[in-house]
Amino acid sequence: MLLNNALQHSHELMARALKPGDRALDATAGNGKDTLHLARLIGSTGEVVAVDIQKQALDNTQNLLKKENLINQVQLIEGNHAQIDKLTSGSFQVAVFNLGYLPGGDHEIITEPESTLRALKKVMPMIRPGGLITLVAYHGHPGGKNELTALEKFLPSLDQKKVAVLQYSFINQAGDPPVLFALEVLEGADYLDP
Amino acid sequence: MLLNNALQHSHELMARALKPGDRALDATAGNGKDTLHLARLIGSTGEVVAVDIQKQALDNTQNLLKKENLINQVQLIEGNHAQIDKLTSGSFQVAVFNLGYLPGGDHEIITEPESTLRALKKVMPMIRPGGLITLVAYHGHPGGKNELTALEKFLPSLDQKKVAVLQYSFINQAGDPPVLFALEVLEGADYLDP
Repeated sequence: MLLNNALQHSHELMARALKPGDRALDATAGNGKDTLHLARLIGSTGEVVAVDIQKQALDNTQNLLKKENLINQVQLIEGNHAQIDKLTSGSFQVAVFNLGYLPGGDHEIITEPESTLRALKKVMPMIRPGGLITLVAYHGHPGGKNELTALEKFLPSLDQKKVAVLQYSFINQAGDPPVLFALEVLEGADYLDP
Repeated sequence: MLLNNALQHSHELMARALKPGDRALDATAGNGKDTLHLARLIGSTGEVVAVDIQKQALDNTQNLLKKENLINQVQLIEGNHAQIDKLTSGSFQVAVFNLGYLPGGDHEIITEPESTLRALKKVMPMIRPGGLITLVAYHGHPGGKNELTALEKFLPSLDQKKVAVLQYSFINQAGDPPVLFALEVLEGADYLDP
């Protein structure tokens, strides 16, 4: 395919935003695919902080990163990303959210609009100017539409002098393909305090 | 900026879709910036067909392409792109629409929703499988919103087995930033006959 899907485009943007030695946050470790991509980009001198509320997700992520010999540059944290300020500190060049349920896990456990927005608002001030937040919203499951709607309502309200918000989506496809939102914290802007 | 604007992303997609020797259509030559980009990509063995309804636009395009020594691989056609089937023939790898008014020209002369859709429907069957159509809609002028609405209504109706339709837009910006629609005609699909 010529056109990247939402996940591929998010990975391309991460690659553009990160260099070796940077610090990145995976706010939804899931099965570790984003963590792996981030770990490759920041290299052995950087750090990825990977958070998930489900132990199974962190186990899967740990196994994947060990297999790829990249676990040394990854810190795994079990906890609720809506309390990210209590789980980690410092600043990040990139933060990543993958919204929905854990593939292969319990489909009843999903990210919820309120905690997603709370997490996002806490992550925003942690991102360095010039940095990036990606959110890929899988909205085909029950509750997924609510989360997408909450993002579509909140994100346009962000100050364009501080952040640029891109929406990237396929508009003629059945099966609710994921939607990408990419937030670039502008150079010269202060840290974001929504 | 990390994130490309709509025009930059359209140019990146054209670069991904075209190789030397290909044939491309600029359905709205304007001041020739897209024609120039296409002419560089298809090289001296390819051909760009550049159409515009305004003589001033074609003069500007001709001057730009002459200055850049790329006019030999460009065919300029004065005419209405809604009658594209009477102006040119054969197939194209890429077709490009820039919707709005001619920058620096008469702002009363704008692309209109009906003729834009008519042109698009005539161009679609001319695109080879694996090829691309980009539409960048400048909708800040009177009438621009109608054209955007017409596209947002028409494009989701296209058969996903034949074409993938991407919408790429910034959602927190005043001043109506342009919206990109990118249509990839899928490999294995027949030529499109909407």
